[in-house]
Amino acid sequence: MNIDGQPYRTIFPDPDGVSVQVIDQTRLPFAFVLTRLATLEDAALAIRTMIVRGAPLIGVTAAYGLALAMRADPSTAGIDRAVATLAATRPTAINLRWALDRVAANLRQVQPEERFARAYAEAGRIAEEDVASCRAIGVHGGRIIADRHAATGRPVTVLTHCNAGWLATVDWGTALAPIYAAHAQGVPVHVLVDETRPRNQGAALTAFELHGHGVPHTVIADNAGGHLMQHGTVDLCIVGSDRTTARGDVCNKIGTYLKALAAHDNRVPFYAALPFSTIDWTLDDGVREIPIEERDGREVTHMTGRLADGGFATIEVVSPGSPVANPAFDVTPARLVTGIITERGVCTASAEGLYGLYPERRTAA
Amino acid sequence: MNIDGQPYRTIFPDPDGVSVQVIDQTRLPFAFVLTRLATLEDAALAIRTMIVRGAPLIGVTAAYGLALAMRADPSTAGIDRAVATLAATRPTAINLRWALDRVAANLRQVQPEERFARAYAEAGRIAEEDVASCRAIGVHGGRIIADRHAATGRPVTVLTHCNAGWLATVDWGTALAPIYAAHAQGVPVHVLVDETRPRNQGAALTAFELHGHGVPHTVIADNAGGHLMQHGTVDLCIVGSDRTTARGDVCNKIGTYLKALAAHDNRVPFYAALPFSTIDWTLDDGVREIPIEERDGREVTHMTGRLADGGFATIEVVSPGSPVANPAFDVTPARLVTGIITERGVCTASAEGLYGLYPERRTAA
Repeated sequence: MNIDGQPYRTIFPDPDGVSVQVIDQTRLPFAFVLTRLATLEDAALAIRTMIVRGAPLIGVTAAYGLALAMRADPSTAGIDRAVATLAATRPTAINLRWALDRVAANLRQVQPEERFARAYAEAGRIAEEDVASCRAIGVHGGRIIADRHAATGRPVTVLTHCNAGWLATVDWGTALAPIYAAHAQGVPVHVLVDETRPRNQGAALTAFELHGHGVPHTVIADNAGGHLMQHGTVDLCIVGSDRTTARGDVCNKIGTYLKALAAHDNRVPFYAALPFSTIDWTLDDGVREIPIEERDGREVTHMTGRLADGGFATIEVVSPGSPVANPAFDVTPARLVTGIITERGVCTASAEGLYGLYPERRTAA
Repeated sequence: MNIDGQPYRTIFPDPDGVSVQVIDQTRLPFAFVLTRLATLEDAALAIRTMIVRGAPLIGVTAAYGLALAMRADPSTAGIDRAVATLAATRPTAINLRWALDRVAANLRQVQPEERFARAYAEAGRIAEEDVASCRAIGVHGGRIIADRHAATGRPVTVLTHCNAGWLATVDWGTALAPIYAAHAQGVPVHVLVDETRPRNQGAALTAFELHGHGVPHTVIADNAGGHLMQHGTVDLCIVGSDRTTARGDVCNKIGTYLKALAAHDNRVPFYAALPFSTIDWTLDDGVREIPIEERDGREVTHMTGRLADGGFATIEVVSPGSPVANPAFDVTPARLVTGIITERGVCTASAEGLYGLYPERRTAA
């Protein structure tokens, strides 16, 4: 999407032909900085420290990371080592594992000297497929927003949590793709953006994207969404997903489950938008089976932001000496999810719905 | 309760006999500073800027504010003006209105020259009654925690939202009174403290109180509670209230409703602890009838905290140019509330339950 009228992707090949550039998302929303990844270690660090984040973008970055590893050590042991290093960076996102498996399987078929070029090209293909997939999610999900507008004649207010926008993917986004698509068609849409503590991806990234693209929006504390739904302010919710089970349980940023409960209690439709690579066909019960990453408590106790003089500072916001817990994701049971929007269409959050869109998985499972 | 072994109340008469001292809660948790209120304007400003906060403490501060106003203008018009000024500081808390009505009714019975002394004494009585009331809430609610411990043999994990501790009252607290009571009896209790965005009263005040008193606790992002309840980590929830309707709808800090939904979904008992002065017998449907204060968006966009060098800074944390909404309270419908703990005992969140504890209100209504 555009920043100051200039189209960008979140990750793209460097002109040197052997490294990649990414937007450093830890610097947003106050500074727009590109950073170059030239080694496996660069890529692993970028994922771990959330220079890049968002399940689809993590997958593409990991694929490029595996390519970069092949420059240093294209042996089969080198593949295994790089896959292990990259897989360990974030435990929850399934796309990470999916992208690594795809590139690694491809690499094992060729000689070491061909592996870097093969992996680099394959990573590029994964990136292109992600863009096409997100664009299709936008088409399918955009119809839900347009239908709502047609039914009410009013602007459509969509609540979203965290950042599942173009910054979380290569372009377009997942949860925000339907919003960009509706906006492009002239459907009046207003986005309620959960700030998304503790890392504030909503306030920092989703607000940045929507502002940059000219989509009307309002930032709210994570606590506010239930109240707004009680008072009829929210037409529908759309969130992304880091992993979705074969029966439609949706793992996403911590706090998503609370919004799904409020949506259910107030009869507000609740959708998850995700590409096929987010679906973990090996899992059924998301609450019991999906490992939830526990992140550093410092994400809760400290916040970084801009000072009035334009400088930056990190401040402590929790009473000193108090312990902190910081689970990064939660699972919304399928019973609370109205529908799942994928690149193939919209289905119910159920095994029937998902296998209906992906019949080829039925035999594979 | 104690700070560094020294007992404090949140508000107490100044030795000069004509003003009052309060703990400046905007300076917590990093600095413990007392500030003197000597005029009506001091008291109104202290409530509006949240130097004092918490429904019961706001009521007591308003009562003292009315007394301070009588020093400057003890006329009947002066009473009306002071009541109007103080009532306008915070629109949601019912105790504020209740305390003002009580003191004002008292003042109208006496001559202007007696009014300051009368109001000052009456404010003191309201403070003493609040302490007794909170202590009784602790006794009744503490039994729920002790019973849970007796049933499981494990430490009892209680999730709370915002600060309804001794800092929100004159002493003991409402939601935290049962925890202090259980802790004092040797019942092992662990408190999960919602940070409570946007003002972080949980991370700043509840954590400060519990740490100061030696009660085990863990601070979490507001988003985390649902996930923790799904995984059986939470034994019960206890929150305070700023206004509770005659049929048991509980208005409390924004985000409380989301925790009640999660508790209901996971069969975790959910209690509200409150003194009788919080009950608004004139209202039934809290969601429709209780006015919800919309506070300054700067509470969402900016945060103040401590720098590594010990200084303080205010930082911007939302993408510049994005609009913000900031509703301060929400209403949890009675159907999601397991019980209400008051100074008279524990009842169901219903008209039957509340009139059962307060039969004298049945005829008054």
